[in-house]
Amino acid sequence: MLKLSEIYKPVKGDLKAVTEQFELLAEGKRESFPELHQMLKHTLGGGKVIRPALTLLCCRCFRYEPARVLPMATASELLHIATLVHDDAIDKADTRRGKPTVNSLWGTDKAILLGDYLFARAGEFAAATENIRVVKLFSRTLQIISSGELSQSFDAFSYDQTFDQYKDRIAAKTAALIVMATESGAILGGASAEEIQVMNDYGYNLGVAFQIVDDILDFVGDEKEMGKPVGSDLAQGTLTLPALLLIGRRPQDNPIPRLFAGEDKEKNVELAVEMVRRSSIIDDCYRTAREYIDKACSRLENLPQSPFRQSLLAVAAYIIKRKN
Amino acid sequence: MLKLSEIYKPVKGDLKAVTEQFELLAEGKRESFPELHQMLKHTLGGGKVIRPALTLLCCRCFRYEPARVLPMATASELLHIATLVHDDAIDKADTRRGKPTVNSLWGTDKAILLGDYLFARAGEFAAATENIRVVKLFSRTLQIISSGELSQSFDAFSYDQTFDQYKDRIAAKTAALIVMATESGAILGGASAEEIQVMNDYGYNLGVAFQIVDDILDFVGDEKEMGKPVGSDLAQGTLTLPALLLIGRRPQDNPIPRLFAGEDKEKNVELAVEMVRRSSIIDDCYRTAREYIDKACSRLENLPQSPFRQSLLAVAAYIIKRKN
Repeated sequence: MLKLSEIYKPVKGDLKAVTEQFELLAEGKRESFPELHQMLKHTLGGGKVIRPALTLLCCRCFRYEPARVLPMATASELLHIATLVHDDAIDKADTRRGKPTVNSLWGTDKAILLGDYLFARAGEFAAATENIRVVKLFSRTLQIISSGELSQSFDAFSYDQTFDQYKDRIAAKTAALIVMATESGAILGGASAEEIQVMNDYGYNLGVAFQIVDDILDFVGDEKEMGKPVGSDLAQGTLTLPALLLIGRRPQDNPIPRLFAGEDKEKNVELAVEMVRRSSIIDDCYRTAREYIDKACSRLENLPQSPFRQSLLAVAAYIIKRKN
Repeated sequence: MLKLSEIYKPVKGDLKAVTEQFELLAEGKRESFPELHQMLKHTLGGGKVIRPALTLLCCRCFRYEPARVLPMATASELLHIATLVHDDAIDKADTRRGKPTVNSLWGTDKAILLGDYLFARAGEFAAATENIRVVKLFSRTLQIISSGELSQSFDAFSYDQTFDQYKDRIAAKTAALIVMATESGAILGGASAEEIQVMNDYGYNLGVAFQIVDDILDFVGDEKEMGKPVGSDLAQGTLTLPALLLIGRRPQDNPIPRLFAGEDKEKNVELAVEMVRRSSIIDDCYRTAREYIDKACSRLENLPQSPFRQSLLAVAAYIIKRKN
């Protein structure tokens, strides 16, 4: 498996410009007060920067438009970070990327406001593309994400869920943002309607696979590498694919209904994690993820060969093999 | 004093179209699930709809552009409502406009997500203007509001504040959104740079006055008419103009430092409210508000006479006399 730094090579310079944007943002002179700087410095930077890399790569598959695509790549990552800040506040999560969360350091109230601020900055970068279609895509994406999270929040601790509901949920909470990253790149690169649809499909399938792998890692990942505790989805009342399969295969003697009924949380999370690990569920989940990855890659077949297309294929391969 | 319905007459039809938008939104087929409908139905509608009225009136002072200005008027109100939903969640407020708040009915977590959803819908309406300058103004406004609220949140329960800090804070938390409403109307009406600046200045001064009156009503208003309890700013640790003046005039024997130190909250809020009511502070605050209102109105002098300009002047007169 290639390292991300190797995969990103064809857009290395531009990706560096994006991360430099974050540093500028954290030092920013506007709306300046020391606490905001501190919060931005803590929040921005780090991470795998997959979303801005996708925006840049998808654009370069067509036409290079740095003045337009750089702000959009920045917007992709900022929107992602903004949603994480609110997610962590809602989940009362303590750690993210191995660091304390905004809510754990500054409290829920300030996490809400910082998230709002980051949404606004993301929106400003999207508008800096001067492309109204991209701006509409941006707003639409935030709508899909927030209504998806809201729906998940109403479904929390509900035991009776189907694979289709799960798929819809992860499409909203993860794939939508990745679609925004890939589709906006294609739009700004001047791609045709058909090519834009290719990048939309690639992003959707990549995004679904990405979240399935995330959900797998929540059961089998290394806590240190992931920077957050194992089993946290179940602890939040969220049924993911491994949990759904466990319920299907072990309808009797299953710790999840007891857990969702509020009984002995820690023990039942641990038990469910153990049962999943000892079954073939993880392999089956990887099989499903791979199907989405294959679909994503097959959509790229008709695009001309290029280092950028090559990297998009490599991102897909990376996603299924990643450990954090 | 004219009633709002009379003031709004020149844009009555369009304002009705805006409020019908809200009904459509609450019934919306997209991202549909019953709980979201319920939340939207509870949140949208009601209120004084001053912001969309301003957008419509400011546009009509120049050129009538219904296809562009109607979505922006809708965006002005939606952005306002979104910020209220988050504010109430942060303040743990129980009532708003005489109704239970979103956070009191559904909890903080869902209030965060509904606010995000409303930001996104507001952004979508702003983008529907197809005017990138207006979209930038929209993002910039959300930035000013959220960083202003964040700054206020860091300053909460701090006793040592100046009038200038207060003015900066209310400019960010209230005037910015009103400036967006007025300026976007002018932009979409095809106003000249100078005319756009007129509407920006009008909005700024109107907005500062609006918030000063709000802060006055928090001391002397009728709880029933306001739909929220008296003294709630002080209880939240927010120093407003009446409180600042009370501190200046009664440096000794003042309940606010004790209140901010966490002593006997209810009693000290009540005491501070009583002391303000019995002093000339309220008259002085109204004098300051009136100065801003006069500045707002004087900026409109060079615009041609029209029912729309007349209504903008009437909005200013209304704001200083309003009781809720």
